[in-house]
Amino acid sequence: MAREAWGRWGAEDEAGAPNLAGPAEVLRAASLVRTGRVVPLAQTLHAAMPVPGHRAGMSHFMGRDGGDYAAGAKRPGGFQFAEDTVVLPLHSGTHVDALCHAWCDDLMYNGFPGSAVRSTTGAQRLGVEKLPPLVTRGILLDLAQDGPLADGTPVGRAMLEAAAARAGVVPEPGDAVLLRTGWLEAQEGRPRRLISFDAEPGLDEEGAVWLAGAGVALVGADNYAIEVLPFPPGQVFPVHQRLLRDHGIPLLEGMQLKPLAEAGATAFLFVAAALPIKGATGSPLTPVAVL
Amino acid sequence: MAREAWGRWGAEDEAGAPNLAGPAEVLRAASLVRTGRVVPLAQTLHAAMPVPGHRAGMSHFMGRDGGDYAAGAKRPGGFQFAEDTVVLPLHSGTHVDALCHAWCDDLMYNGFPGSAVRSTTGAQRLGVEKLPPLVTRGILLDLAQDGPLADGTPVGRAMLEAAAARAGVVPEPGDAVLLRTGWLEAQEGRPRRLISFDAEPGLDEEGAVWLAGAGVALVGADNYAIEVLPFPPGQVFPVHQRLLRDHGIPLLEGMQLKPLAEAGATAFLFVAAALPIKGATGSPLTPVAVL
Amino acid sequence: MAREAWGRWGAEDEAGAPNLAGPAEVLRAASLVRTGRVVPLAQTLHAAMPVPGHRAGMSHFMGRDGGDYAAGAKRPGGFQFAEDTVVLPLHSGTHVDALCHAWCDDLMYNGFPGSAVRSTTGAQRLGVEKLPPLVTRGILLDLAQDGPLADGTPVGRAMLEAAAARAGVVPEPGDAVLLRTGWLEAQEGRPRRLISFDAEPGLDEEGAVWLAGAGVALVGADNYAIEVLPFPPGQVFPVHQRLLRDHGIPLLEGMQLKPLAEAGATAFLFVAAALPIKGATGSPLTPVAVL
Amino acid sequence: MAREAWGRWGAEDEAGAPNLAGPAEVLRAASLVRTGRVVPLAQTLHAAMPVPGHRAGMSHFMGRDGGDYAAGAKRPGGFQFAEDTVVLPLHSGTHVDALCHAWCDDLMYNGFPGSAVRSTTGAQRLGVEKLPPLVTRGILLDLAQDGPLADGTPVGRAMLEAAAARAGVVPEPGDAVLLRTGWLEAQEGRPRRLISFDAEPGLDEEGAVWLAGAGVALVGADNYAIEVLPFPPGQVFPVHQRLLRDHGIPLLEGMQLKPLAEAGATAFLFVAAALPIKGATGSPLTPVAVL
Repeated sequence: MAREAWGRWGAEDEAGAPNLAGPAEVLRAASLVRTGRVVPLAQTLHAAMPVPGHRAGMSHFMGRDGGDYAAGAKRPGGFQFAEDTVVLPLHSGTHVDALCHAWCDDLMYNGFPGSAVRSTTGAQRLGVEKLPPLVTRGILLDLAQDGPLADGTPVGRAMLEAAAARAGVVPEPGDAVLLRTGWLEAQEGRPRRLISFDAEPGLDEEGAVWLAGAGVALVGADNYAIEVLPFPPGQVFPVHQRLLRDHGIPLLEGMQLKPLAEAGATAFLFVAAALPIKGATGSPLTPVAVL
Repeated sequence: MAREAWGRWGAEDEAGAPNLAGPAEVLRAASLVRTGRVVPLAQTLHAAMPVPGHRAGMSHFMGRDGGDYAAGAKRPGGFQFAEDTVVLPLHSGTHVDALCHAWCDDLMYNGFPGSAVRSTTGAQRLGVEKLPPLVTRGILLDLAQDGPLADGTPVGRAMLEAAAARAGVVPEPGDAVLLRTGWLEAQEGRPRRLISFDAEPGLDEEGAVWLAGAGVALVGADNYAIEVLPFPPGQVFPVHQRLLRDHGIPLLEGMQLKPLAEAGATAFLFVAAALPIKGATGSPLTPVAVL
Repeated sequence: MAREAWGRWGAEDEAGAPNLAGPAEVLRAASLVRTGRVVPLAQTLHAAMPVPGHRAGMSHFMGRDGGDYAAGAKRPGGFQFAEDTVVLPLHSGTHVDALCHAWCDDLMYNGFPGSAVRSTTGAQRLGVEKLPPLVTRGILLDLAQDGPLADGTPVGRAMLEAAAARAGVVPEPGDAVLLRTGWLEAQEGRPRRLISFDAEPGLDEEGAVWLAGAGVALVGADNYAIEVLPFPPGQVFPVHQRLLRDHGIPLLEGMQLKPLAEAGATAFLFVAAALPIKGATGSPLTPVAVL
Repeated sequence: MAREAWGRWGAEDEAGAPNLAGPAEVLRAASLVRTGRVVPLAQTLHAAMPVPGHRAGMSHFMGRDGGDYAAGAKRPGGFQFAEDTVVLPLHSGTHVDALCHAWCDDLMYNGFPGSAVRSTTGAQRLGVEKLPPLVTRGILLDLAQDGPLADGTPVGRAMLEAAAARAGVVPEPGDAVLLRTGWLEAQEGRPRRLISFDAEPGLDEEGAVWLAGAGVALVGADNYAIEVLPFPPGQVFPVHQRLLRDHGIPLLEGMQLKPLAEAGATAFLFVAAALPIKGATGSPLTPVAVL
């Protein structure tokens, strides 16, 4: 009932469920391309993005810019350039949670100790750089076809099955399953300080286990934390624990799924490649759907 | 002879040559998938990466980690997690140069003023978030099949044509052209402080113009700056100026191309999606080849 | 009426009014020490400090800590240590505004051009490292003896003279004048998001000019911006412009003055030494009063 | 023989030896002011400062600057300003080591556990904000009157006593003792990459214990680590352990002492006030001597 995927790909495995998206799944996914339309699935990253109260936003600093030339900076050989630096909390915007992001009982996915994640080294095990780029079939389960789900709505097996039926798809091994709850769209235009990160519609444990049982390689959603908030009484991030730790399934949070839904996409070539930051617990990225 | 691409996609265009990789090119690229093998093309990002002297390296900070739990931190509901932040110069590791990265005569690609790039706003025009994810045919031009090119070797049209002939490919509109010079591989194992960023083999202006003339959507390479260093006398980053500014062609620097060469890949599905950081001049990313 | 101090200490002067606190003023100040009590005048700096909406807060990251040892990190020779890094906006907490912080008409104090302050170099003129440590007589003008002034209360000459009379002091050349408005104390215990930076009691232009006319070396206060907010109609930070730019008087914002008032201090040895960050526009610091 | 100061100022004390600089010592120090000359004792902080290989340098970013106005930024009401942010490793430049910086046997000064220093909270005990500003007598022990000491020279009791005799001073309880080894001066003009942090002249354990026995409140020096490098065989930072942990004496590293020596200063009013960063292990600061 727990630790279902531990040992499945060997005692040293640090990739988890993305192992299920092998060459055959890549070929299947490539064959789904019909129109050649590319749909980016990421939010824009910027300093004014809403963030939960316990987290800092990103900062973006220009080290050199056009203003410097306007102010008289030299341009050797005529060359002018600009460059910049970000201070970037890695769970910002649209991002993947690496398998070292969450755990319990001091043990992470595949039995690696939580103590392998340290200030001095980052994650010595299960860092985001251990996740291979994912190229596989993506399926969109649209739960918001009638408008955003209400905050606190748990998305369980029945809702997932109904959405899959509407889409005419069935989750299969190696799939990237993308859940549209409408949460992100519902925040649009709201003043930043009025956006709550305490409640959202999202996956419940039953739904999570059902997806894991289908062999999915990744679960993504357009909400803040994949799973329903508030948590069931006495539990804290149960879906994170079940999917990341027990099933080795990375989570892709904060996706922009409205354009995909509006395009009527249901099954498509999906590509998601994190920044290979050594020892990191996550990474912003731009997943793409190719229709 | 200069500003060749200005106005080609309209006065307001901020995407440049990636416009050449439209649905037809996506379909062509998807049809190239043969084995389903996915090859990531990025260097690992870490604090000890070599960087040129005028740039800072990245820093990676854990905000919460396994050590905190070992030291006694509470685990409400049993939940444990780790999270982290990077200070990330955006031209680190394998990264794309956005079209606002380099210019001359105070004008950037498509005539946008350099003064649109400011400390307060970042790039109001041509920021990296304006580059669409690129899904297109990639071709590998392997210039290092007999070992790394010597530092200072200019890669011109003849060498490019010879490499293309060896690979049995011809650069076509919308292609992502990847140049393997062997530079990155030659640095492997060198102590960080002995790695020079003053000399490298790379594209010269003739070669760059030839690629641009072929209609390529992007030029990538495994060296530090795409172009040959040192520059020809009196010039400073001439290839950056010609490709980014005149032709609107983004550059993809610091790629890891050895595995692709070793796989014998010549033409393949190529996907590159930058972080959509508002107003940024570039972005690390993980390009992938799908064979 | 404007630019009063320009040229007073020479065309190349970058120190401004602190020039008025010379050896004689230092000796005078040292002679004021009576009890040997040291009163620190700075707020604690931490990540949860309230900041105005357009600014980021500080971040504090541990690079090595006790948790790492609890998790098993090695301790060569038994040695254990911790170290850390801050991302620190320089106008955080109790801080000094350097003379390059504010200007108008493209000219800063002493006629230096605003264009000398660039992304690439920081402030080539008037950076905070050009401010000498200030050791001089401090005087406390307590405007909040009956409780915090209401937001929007302008502090003009009459209020300053009355406070000085109550304290039995007269501002003299070289003095550091500290204004207690009660603003900071009034924020204590308020939830961070309810703290407004749009209104506060503070110095008005008349009061500022009166202090400048007295020859003070520095003006400090316990509010966010020294001057009254909102501004008089049509003006933006007029006191910053008059004091920093016209009179070369650095400002010391966000001071913790309640303990000084409670100690009954009126004239004392005052020491304020900024971090000498090359080209910076300000610096957090810990001013001290020695009673 | 170890843990000499534990419990001396109570089981909850987090200030350590600075407790020895009380009102009487402040009064004594103030009485030493003779000429009113103020000598700052800090290095300038800038991005190109040499740092040991395992540490990152500081970065300085302008968020708004004169270039932005040159490029056309608006100036409401005529007001122009600049502001900036630093990424600042706290043991940069001239800085104080807080009592939580180093320890052994999992116990810090006064028996507080090393596990109180965590990523999530910083140092819950002995953070730099717990160090009171130090206002006391400073004495300069000039070991470099004949030129910089050679790297690796241990400074023991005899050298300290000889230097004190030359200066005509005796270390007394509450003193800040400043050691000039000449190391910092010897690095001036050296290319950054040639500066070694593996060897330096500095205090040895015998010298450290002698100073601690005299009751000093703080030990400062012009070298990188106070203590001699390389360490004696089998030991790692023994002076850090003895002074910080056993005696509760903060260390002030990287001081600029040449101007003080050139002024012939031997005993003077000394003021050092760290940034009160909650939970930090150290802080850059600008100590001053008042002659």
